[in-house]
Amino acid sequence: MAHNNPSRNLAEVPDYVPDEYSDGTASLHASLLQTWWGNMRGKVDIAPHKDLTIENITENVHMINSRCPDPRQKYLLERLVTHIHDFARETRLSTGEWMAAIQFLTSVGKICSDVRQKVVLKRESSQEFILLSDVLGLSLLVDSIDHPKPPASTEGTVLGPFHTHDAANEPNGSTISHDPDGEPCLVLCTVKNMAGEPIANVKIDIWETDSKGFYDVQYADREGPDGRTVMESDAHGVFWFKAIVPVPYPIPHDGPVGQLLKMLGRHPYRPSHMHFMFAKEGYDHLITALYLRDDPYETSDAVFGVKESLIVDLGTVNAEQAQKYGVKEGGKLMTYDFVLVSDEETRRLREKEAMVAMKKLGRKMKLYRGLPVPDVD
Amino acid sequence: MAHNNPSRNLAEVPDYVPDEYSDGTASLHASLLQTWWGNMRGKVDIAPHKDLTIENITENVHMINSRCPDPRQKYLLERLVTHIHDFARETRLSTGEWMAAIQFLTSVGKICSDVRQKVVLKRESSQEFILLSDVLGLSLLVDSIDHPKPPASTEGTVLGPFHTHDAANEPNGSTISHDPDGEPCLVLCTVKNMAGEPIANVKIDIWETDSKGFYDVQYADREGPDGRTVMESDAHGVFWFKAIVPVPYPIPHDGPVGQLLKMLGRHPYRPSHMHFMFAKEGYDHLITALYLRDDPYETSDAVFGVKESLIVDLGTVNAEQAQKYGVKEGGKLMTYDFVLVSDEETRRLREKEAMVAMKKLGRKMKLYRGLPVPDVD
Repeated sequence: MAHNNPSRNLAEVPDYVPDEYSDGTASLHASLLQTWWGNMRGKVDIAPHKDLTIENITENVHMINSRCPDPRQKYLLERLVTHIHDFARETRLSTGEWMAAIQFLTSVGKICSDVRQKVVLKRESSQEFILLSDVLGLSLLVDSIDHPKPPASTEGTVLGPFHTHDAANEPNGSTISHDPDGEPCLVLCTVKNMAGEPIANVKIDIWETDSKGFYDVQYADREGPDGRTVMESDAHGVFWFKAIVPVPYPIPHDGPVGQLLKMLGRHPYRPSHMHFMFAKEGYDHLITALYLRDDPYETSDAVFGVKESLIVDLGTVNAEQAQKYGVKEGGKLMTYDFVLVSDEETRRLREKEAMVAMKKLGRKMKLYRGLPVPDVD
Repeated sequence: MAHNNPSRNLAEVPDYVPDEYSDGTASLHASLLQTWWGNMRGKVDIAPHKDLTIENITENVHMINSRCPDPRQKYLLERLVTHIHDFARETRLSTGEWMAAIQFLTSVGKICSDVRQKVVLKRESSQEFILLSDVLGLSLLVDSIDHPKPPASTEGTVLGPFHTHDAANEPNGSTISHDPDGEPCLVLCTVKNMAGEPIANVKIDIWETDSKGFYDVQYADREGPDGRTVMESDAHGVFWFKAIVPVPYPIPHDGPVGQLLKMLGRHPYRPSHMHFMFAKEGYDHLITALYLRDDPYETSDAVFGVKESLIVDLGTVNAEQAQKYGVKEGGKLMTYDFVLVSDEETRRLREKEAMVAMKKLGRKMKLYRGLPVPDVD
């Protein structure tokens, strides 16, 4: 075999190894490392760094990771390693099962190609890791933790993998879906604050599937956005548009996440819904959706997103509305009054809930950039 | 947007949804789903399937996953979901941190392209997920659980990502490394059973880096295997070969796993070692390595693989050995007596340790294909 690559020796230390280790001789390396670990020994009550066993490996990985300068990242890694190790110990995970997990994650990662993340082709999976998080209930859980909602505010739900950033800004009254097979639906909404006052100039992303249950990005021949728009609430907090009645659809299930659902005997369907995302400075970012009552998947959503407060009964457009909004009388009507929470109130609630949860766990914690970390001296 | 794809409606049910749901009408879907979940309700004590909260989402995901027909897969998923959810709850994981994790996993997956898994190019990462498992201590933990070793048998350690299946079968005495810069090392070994009897015809995979700390597969211009071989023990359980003295090297650190190590303030080095893998019917597959004593990374291996019983002191080739094995007198000598454990003994030990661990956890479990699952009626 030819060795025509640039030579490498012990002197070539990666740039993130502390400077004092880059002297270039193996012996100095050795002595400095001894000092380094010697210092660590003084700071952390550690088991030996070799001969790691089922029982002592976790504390040793923690010890080696404890050099992390950011207290939050250090805490996240400490909990991650604990849970991954406990998982292996509690299940007595076999080598074959471990390899199957490695291959599963690799297949999830492979399907997330650059191209597929920009334009999701039909029958190819988008952002499979988000789907994986969705079907494991993690996405909803994280949204619930990060965006706590006081009573009377609008609840959040899963983002899913189909939001895009290329929808056009359109005025109130626009038609957002051009699917000729869709059943027209007039959507009349308001957006208010916790005091019941209308909020003007809220940026609202809206997206839904076509009548066949596909988002625009699932079509290989997509020429531009459809079934999606970006609007602004008017001075009265009102926004309205012409859409189609949402239909249930399966999440992309031709990839590894579909295989997982199959293994679990689960169906991949989501109940009929329309996505909404609200952004306005000073208010907590709200990612939510409205669901149709009595959908066959209302209580078995593959991604656990349905909340009673987000379920709507479709109404019927009356004569006055038909004239005012330029739609047919007797057509479908969806109405909803969204309530946003201020950044400040959300922050207070999030921090309060975090500290209550930490106390329940019996951990001495403090907040660091609004998130809990161990309170050590 | 054109809708020239085959139409889809509710009748088009994925093939893994039970037959009774594929009738083709939404209303039948609805009634059958009601029956289905209705039955589930009878079998599992469940919280509502909508309005999932931080507190009740875990039990609901378990409930929905409980249709899994394989008891072991069901248990694995139950524990996985519990730990992932507890991780999010204990850390109060933020949406930003969740997205960073999704992006990290995506980048790990992207680097595992087909090409890179077949031939690992220099400065490109191989099987990044294995490396991720390695640096988190999971690989060593799983090996320890799955391959328990009775006293006096040879301990196992991490496989790492550099084993290949293309090494040539070579006779005893072969030269396995052709690096002209490597320091020659005669390796004399035996392989025996627990009773001290030699085992003949054991298939032994051996692999090591060159003198620069690179495996053959890390060279873009690799023409074939080097620094690796497959041998068989002879009638006396002996196998021997000519290699080079192993050197320390960093694991591939130009990818996401390297970024993780950097964030954690960890170095990416492994101490000098030579890999061995033993396979013979009736014996537990042994993946192990020999480490050189006093390596600068002996107590800080980036992947936690070092065990005292696997550390060797290099000796010196004497005149008799030089003549017998056709090497220079005074050269380096590595010797080791490997001890394999029977499949049967390993199985008994693995199952015993599993049941002891389950009892400690206070769980009523039974063995299913040799692995623990809940013991339910």
